Amino acid sequence: MHANANPFLVRLDATAKDMEELLDRLMGPTPEDGEMERPARLLGAMRYASLGGGKRFRPFLVAESAALFDVPRQQALMAGAALECVHCYSLVHDDLPAMDNDALRRGQPTVHKAYDEATAILVGDGLLTFAFDILSRPQTHPDAAVRIELVTALARASGIGGMVGGQLLDLAAEGRFMGGGPQQHGEREVLKLQAMKTGALLLFACTAGGILGSATPQQREALSRYGLAVGKAFQIADDLLDVEGDAALVGKNTGKDAAAGKATMVSLLGGAGAKARLRQLVAEAEEALAPFGSAAAILVEGARFVANRHA
Amino acid sequence: MHANANPFLVRLDATAKDMEELLDRLMGPTPEDGEMERPARLLGAMRYASLGGGKRFRPFLVAESAALFDVPRQQALMAGAALECVHCYSLVHDDLPAMDNDALRRGQPTVHKAYDEATAILVGDGLLTFAFDILSRPQTHPDAAVRIELVTALARASGIGGMVGGQLLDLAAEGRFMGGGPQQHGEREVLKLQAMKTGALLLFACTAGGILGSATPQQREALSRYGLAVGKAFQIADDLLDVEGDAALVGKNTGKDAAAGKATMVSLLGGAGAKARLRQLVAEAEEALAPFGSAAAILVEGARFVANRHA
Repeated sequence: MHANANPFLVRLDATAKDMEELLDRLMGPTPEDGEMERPARLLGAMRYASLGGGKRFRPFLVAESAALFDVPRQQALMAGAALECVHCYSLVHDDLPAMDNDALRRGQPTVHKAYDEATAILVGDGLLTFAFDILSRPQTHPDAAVRIELVTALARASGIGGMVGGQLLDLAAEGRFMGGGPQQHGEREVLKLQAMKTGALLLFACTAGGILGSATPQQREALSRYGLAVGKAFQIADDLLDVEGDAALVGKNTGKDAAAGKATMVSLLGGAGAKARLRQLVAEAEEALAPFGSAAAILVEGARFVANRHA
Repeated sequence: MHANANPFLVRLDATAKDMEELLDRLMGPTPEDGEMERPARLLGAMRYASLGGGKRFRPFLVAESAALFDVPRQQALMAGAALECVHCYSLVHDDLPAMDNDALRRGQPTVHKAYDEATAILVGDGLLTFAFDILSRPQTHPDAAVRIELVTALARASGIGGMVGGQLLDLAAEGRFMGGGPQQHGEREVLKLQAMKTGALLLFACTAGGILGSATPQQREALSRYGLAVGKAFQIADDLLDVEGDAALVGKNTGKDAAAGKATMVSLLGGAGAKARLRQLVAEAEEALAPFGSAAAILVEGARFVANRHA
């Protein structure tokens, strides 16, 4: 694959392949110390939810940000696997009938369609819990203080003050709780909602490399600026795909935001304005990484990829 | 309260009060570092799910097992608060329409009844995530290696090889996935299911004190034996309450196991046999703690309380 492709795509593919192998191994049938049994149906459904798909862009960000500090790749992949478990759990719960009620994900039946709703709830709970199991293992980093810093950071990025809180705000924006239709959000509210719902995990991905690599405060700040820009760009590109994308290519239903009457950066800025903002965010991402020089070229390409993706 | 009560009840009440104060403080409106905002609806629902009720028996076990090793009480309470968040999340998700479909919990409307189903899903996700946030804080223990050991242990007790796996087995036992009615489980299957679904968290509660207190392998083994016996006793008492209890006292609907045709230790051993087994388990719990002498008297009382509880 990609024999003539640019180095970025080669690296993205390599991480996706490594991630698939690692998750496959971590989610094997043999219980770890302290586990009694891994029930076959639940394990199968957790594997269905997390294997065999996805660009693994978040693990890619962990691996490449860690590579700036010569972190052993296997450590970065472990942190990436934990993050991917959180990402996959959030998709499973987000797709539930009481949430977004989606039947398709990456072109396949969602977990509650392929299995059933109770299993899907437990799959999400199991993957979220497993993320912290993975982070806590010595294979993630030999220093317990580094591992615990990752645990704090992932919990904050994923929890009430991050992703889960953002999901609640997203449902509120659709008018789910108050009646009276969708909330009339301005740019400020939309940016905050998205920074929590999707931005927080992407920001974690970029800063995790700095935690693993014991980066200086200046280096961490640079990675945070990069991660914030990438998070914003990711969401705008996602919103553009929802408006302009082909459901068959995107692998899930499109046109949902407009149907829900939900404000996005695309509805606020228009298509051309959103694309101009994307270019600006890519420039911000590139500038943030300037101190790392050419070592950060792949991450810069990653920001361009996010802004220009078609699926 | 309990001015003339035995020391056990005084200590149980004291931990419940401390736990209420700590959870109230941890779930305040102010975001921590790395959090953006705590959305009011989600925070309110998380507080509804976790404050104002419960005997806090799991935190009590953490506090009392930690006290054997002179662990500062505030550290034990932090670990207990994390565990209580996991316990409360599991109740919220367990009560969902797609799971047990319960309208009452501790005599109050369940979270999806008091709020809505989407909020209840996110409350569970938020509480589970928050548990690992709490465990990772320096207030739980100054040594990161101790905190990370707690993270591993709680993740294993709660995840696919513990509580979540046990919930899946429990639904399977009701015949939810295969059709053809409830599975005809024998004692061995029932014990394994219950050891995972309810036993794993109780076992964690008893061993957490040993982790916090850097106990010797022999001491940890003693706490594990105690925790296993308490876990089994807890579940038998719960099953007895489901058969013999008064819904108004128990605070949730009763008679559910028989209605679901589910095998329990009570259906397998009969009421008298189950009560004999309870007495045996209390004796095992007491014997396990013999090496600690009179310092463990409160924990022994705890085992008796579990076996004899009426609500």
